[in-house]
Amino acid sequence: MAVYTEVNEVELASFLADYDLGHVLALKGIAEGVENSNYVLHVDAGYFILTLYEKRVDEKDLPFFLGLMEHLAGHGLNCPQPVRNRHGGALGRIAGRPAAIVTFLEGMWHGRPSVRRCAAVGESLGELHRCGASFALYRPNALGPEAWPVLFEQARARAGEVRPGLAAEIAEELSFLEGSWPSNLPRGVIHADLFPDNVLFIGDELSGLIDFYFACTDELAYDVAICLNAWCFEPDGSFNIGKGLAFFSAYESVRELTPGEIEALPVLARGAALRFALTRLVDWLNVPANALVHPKDPLEYFGKLCFHRKIAGPRELGLLR
Amino acid sequence: MAVYTEVNEVELASFLADYDLGHVLALKGIAEGVENSNYVLHVDAGYFILTLYEKRVDEKDLPFFLGLMEHLAGHGLNCPQPVRNRHGGALGRIAGRPAAIVTFLEGMWHGRPSVRRCAAVGESLGELHRCGASFALYRPNALGPEAWPVLFEQARARAGEVRPGLAAEIAEELSFLEGSWPSNLPRGVIHADLFPDNVLFIGDELSGLIDFYFACTDELAYDVAICLNAWCFEPDGSFNIGKGLAFFSAYESVRELTPGEIEALPVLARGAALRFALTRLVDWLNVPANALVHPKDPLEYFGKLCFHRKIAGPRELGLLR
Repeated sequence: MAVYTEVNEVELASFLADYDLGHVLALKGIAEGVENSNYVLHVDAGYFILTLYEKRVDEKDLPFFLGLMEHLAGHGLNCPQPVRNRHGGALGRIAGRPAAIVTFLEGMWHGRPSVRRCAAVGESLGELHRCGASFALYRPNALGPEAWPVLFEQARARAGEVRPGLAAEIAEELSFLEGSWPSNLPRGVIHADLFPDNVLFIGDELSGLIDFYFACTDELAYDVAICLNAWCFEPDGSFNIGKGLAFFSAYESVRELTPGEIEALPVLARGAALRFALTRLVDWLNVPANALVHPKDPLEYFGKLCFHRKIAGPRELGLLR
Repeated sequence: MAVYTEVNEVELASFLADYDLGHVLALKGIAEGVENSNYVLHVDAGYFILTLYEKRVDEKDLPFFLGLMEHLAGHGLNCPQPVRNRHGGALGRIAGRPAAIVTFLEGMWHGRPSVRRCAAVGESLGELHRCGASFALYRPNALGPEAWPVLFEQARARAGEVRPGLAAEIAEELSFLEGSWPSNLPRGVIHADLFPDNVLFIGDELSGLIDFYFACTDELAYDVAICLNAWCFEPDGSFNIGKGLAFFSAYESVRELTPGEIEALPVLARGAALRFALTRLVDWLNVPANALVHPKDPLEYFGKLCFHRKIAGPRELGLLR
């Protein structure tokens, strides 16, 4: 949530010389995106987002991310559309960093999604999975099940500082997931981070999905589980089955889940909860004492994990078929 | 350079209900303004800036700041214009903070001002001083000469960490300024922080002055000295007399300096240099070890102070009259 690289007028003018966007009218660094520097760019052609990719994003992944956004936007999904320059490319360099211009999406994100908005995000996720099926590039999931034991090792020794017994709890869960993780489910492009702050609305209308920088190729139903966890729990930690029903029903209006996916969803939801619990735990234990940005509470996601451990089956998530 | 307070849709809708601006289309937190939270707000009526005033700004000063911007904009100066709500006020509350909406100014700020831009800022500063003369409110300068010894005490013990002998140097300068500071110069509204990052340009055209949150009532020529220091030195620390000439000549095309002001300018420039050297020194010595925002180098301003100590008179600043 910061601007890491400042852009000056000379660099900007030189970068924009490759584009047919007209003159610069304004450039404002925005507090959006955890990994990159983002600017609202106003030029004669309108408003755009200029993103400078910082060191934590691997340059070799950029063709996947930009290609995916272009592919999805071309199929009618509301997502940022990379602007191609006069040489036909969407990726350039500014201030020593790889950089791209994408279209500006209207809308605001909402911290407490209504049932109606849970349905809207379910429908959009279904569209993303459907449109993504024809996207040719491949990117492995760097934060998939193989990465979880590695994350755990980074947090194991000090996990008890967050809650006594947490390390044993995680070890047990990892062992369960290793034995139960499904491997033959439909795969394709997943967003992998479709949290409320990555979904924009104007009123109740979903106006856009943003931040595709965790997108990768993985099991589609795992993405469904990530999204369910992010949207259908209440602030007090309880699962809202009404939201689950609305979410699944809207998702399936676009792409029907297979029987195998439905059966696997409780396990996928446990894995999805553990994945965010682990990354938050590592961030929590490694935050500098005086940091301006406070890390998210890892216990929120251990609570969701606990809920999924106790349910009897997918019906309790709102999957009634 | 951060968003300190997050705004949610319910709070925003309730705040905007008092305004005739239409629906919210987008809200993006921007990395601008050191003390406050700023957002680009897109509504049916267009683009605006929403500012939430954080704890370091004294609420009782807000009528001065907002009134001043309205006064100056009403007199044709390019500066943010507060938008009045249906009750006629420009100040409301959102998310527990005092808040105001001001017009969005196009333009970019530039780190290395050209001679032409130094002239443009000189002319605008003259206009600000001329238009400010009819502004009725008063606000003392909280960072004027009386505040400097206080700032020095906060840094004295550790000033030597930045440069050996620095504390003695500052003590000597404070003593000189106390005996030489002019007291009968024309007073009025000053911006007090007209650095390049507070002046927007579209190409070479000055499109706006922003950030009036240090504005106060003080000697006009002191504001001229602050601006001279901020605009007419080169990155290598040398004074560029060509920029000084352009700056003063443009300023005087709008408001002529009095003989007393001209005579006092070298002393005012020393004081203006010391004021920023001191606040930067305090910030430098008090920065948390892991802070995301790096404080500005205090030695830059001690270098400017050193230049002003050695000159023979105002002619060496570019004031040829």
